[in-house]
Amino acid sequence: MKIGVIGGGSIGLLVARYLCENHDVTVYVRRNQQKQKLNDHGLFLSSLLTPCRVKALLTNELNEEECVIVCVKQPEVGPVLALLSNLNLNEKTPLIFLQNGMGHIELIHDSKQPVYLGIVTHGALRKSDHIVTHSGKGLIKVANFSGGGENLSTIVQQLNSKQFPFQIETNWEKVLAEKLVINAVINPLTAIFEVPNGEILRNTHLMVLAKELCRESCSILQLDFMDQWNHVQTVVTNTKENVSSMWKDLKERKKTENEAISGYLVKKTNSAIPYTTFVYNSMKALEVKKGINE
Amino acid sequence: MKIGVIGGGSIGLLVARYLCENHDVTVYVRRNQQKQKLNDHGLFLSSLLTPCRVKALLTNELNEEECVIVCVKQPEVGPVLALLSNLNLNEKTPLIFLQNGMGHIELIHDSKQPVYLGIVTHGALRKSDHIVTHSGKGLIKVANFSGGGENLSTIVQQLNSKQFPFQIETNWEKVLAEKLVINAVINPLTAIFEVPNGEILRNTHLMVLAKELCRESCSILQLDFMDQWNHVQTVVTNTKENVSSMWKDLKERKKTENEAISGYLVKKTNSAIPYTTFVYNSMKALEVKKGINE
Repeated sequence: MKIGVIGGGSIGLLVARYLCENHDVTVYVRRNQQKQKLNDHGLFLSSLLTPCRVKALLTNELNEEECVIVCVKQPEVGPVLALLSNLNLNEKTPLIFLQNGMGHIELIHDSKQPVYLGIVTHGALRKSDHIVTHSGKGLIKVANFSGGGENLSTIVQQLNSKQFPFQIETNWEKVLAEKLVINAVINPLTAIFEVPNGEILRNTHLMVLAKELCRESCSILQLDFMDQWNHVQTVVTNTKENVSSMWKDLKERKKTENEAISGYLVKKTNSAIPYTTFVYNSMKALEVKKGINE
Repeated sequence: MKIGVIGGGSIGLLVARYLCENHDVTVYVRRNQQKQKLNDHGLFLSSLLTPCRVKALLTNELNEEECVIVCVKQPEVGPVLALLSNLNLNEKTPLIFLQNGMGHIELIHDSKQPVYLGIVTHGALRKSDHIVTHSGKGLIKVANFSGGGENLSTIVQQLNSKQFPFQIETNWEKVLAEKLVINAVINPLTAIFEVPNGEILRNTHLMVLAKELCRESCSILQLDFMDQWNHVQTVVTNTKENVSSMWKDLKERKKTENEAISGYLVKKTNSAIPYTTFVYNSMKALEVKKGINE
């Protein structure tokens, strides 16, 4: 299949690297420098010596593709959609969105393309513009949003591989909500306390805070607390050595996904969710402290 | 007057250093090493070259004094009281307690001695066992607890000096409660976010958290929010370059006054005070992270 992967971050590179084994992949990136690096050297998985020959183009050079996988961070979904709508893509070209948070859903409603929503449970780390590390084996869960269930199963059949599994889910809202809970608990706590994920269960006082954050997210997203708390604990255990993306972003003085995660929950409700509000403001305070631009 | 100052921390040394100008002061300390240092070299204020000749003894060598000023941290008040009750001090010897928090009040109820309660608004930093820096000019506010108002005014008249003012207050509960609000807002926030006091007003997101902490403390301690918030802002402004004691304790891997401050508020109420509970657990989590013993 001719696949366009939009976004040259850790997830974009990981997805492109695995899919290029069986497909004709083009990675669309923002910076000319990254485009050159990818075209000149190929895309490396850091554990393997042989690169994958992907084509790299700038996002404004987007061509017709048979499937477009959007791997930019949530705040960049708006600009990417504007780009796509200017392109007169074939109306049947499916778009798969792989973002944290749920704030992008409103924007996607207007898309003329068939849309599928997914989440990524892999751990990935971008080492450089053309090298990515697969730091934790996971999978990609995709659910139908407006593209039809049968089409989704055809696409997933083509994308799925043993090395890099894709799995169909029936309820996109639940898939995204469950990922949001994970992110709303693990990300801010690890960033504020500068600890790897596992510390959330090893430090009993962090666990108290994690439970309250989980409880609040579940109440807003109408999920069962015990199910989700078990899920959080499993993810924390499986990724115990990992540095969360928010902690990493703060370390690198990059804007975090705070608005898409805790911010989404805070804005979604009028009821008091003080623990979530506390970490939301804490992350904003840390961004200011680190001189990260609004 | 023959004055015994119990405690060789920053406040104990500061009080002893100023009072020794006009009084016969003995500092009671826990460690033999500090006792030796003080006796051998005298007590220095770091801005002055001439030391003050105080007598130093160990706390278990306590003698009859005309006035005892207790400057240990709040969790050590219990042991100090046990020591005092074993001593058969003259029943008229007044005790002045200068602690943060309010948890020690219950213990003091049983004291046979006349008791006065005070708070310290000075900034002080212990440089070594016998050198203290006066980092912010303030005063000591004292109120009668069980010693009689007239006696207090006689004592305060003797202790008071232009360089180191003592001031009488009428309501001990209000004096301690107001100090508790200041500590419950400034101390944990500066320690968690590792910022000097002034950052609480410069970083608007920290200010959001500070206001909520202030609101919760006021509701528990039945104080007016706007009065106390103004007070917090004044203190933050006057001490903007200061490193709070909790942040300092964490840096030095020493147990903080978390239990006496936020912990006191959390335990005093059955209503939800989520912001205070959040910082209370955060401080406990940071103590664990830093390997500070329970």
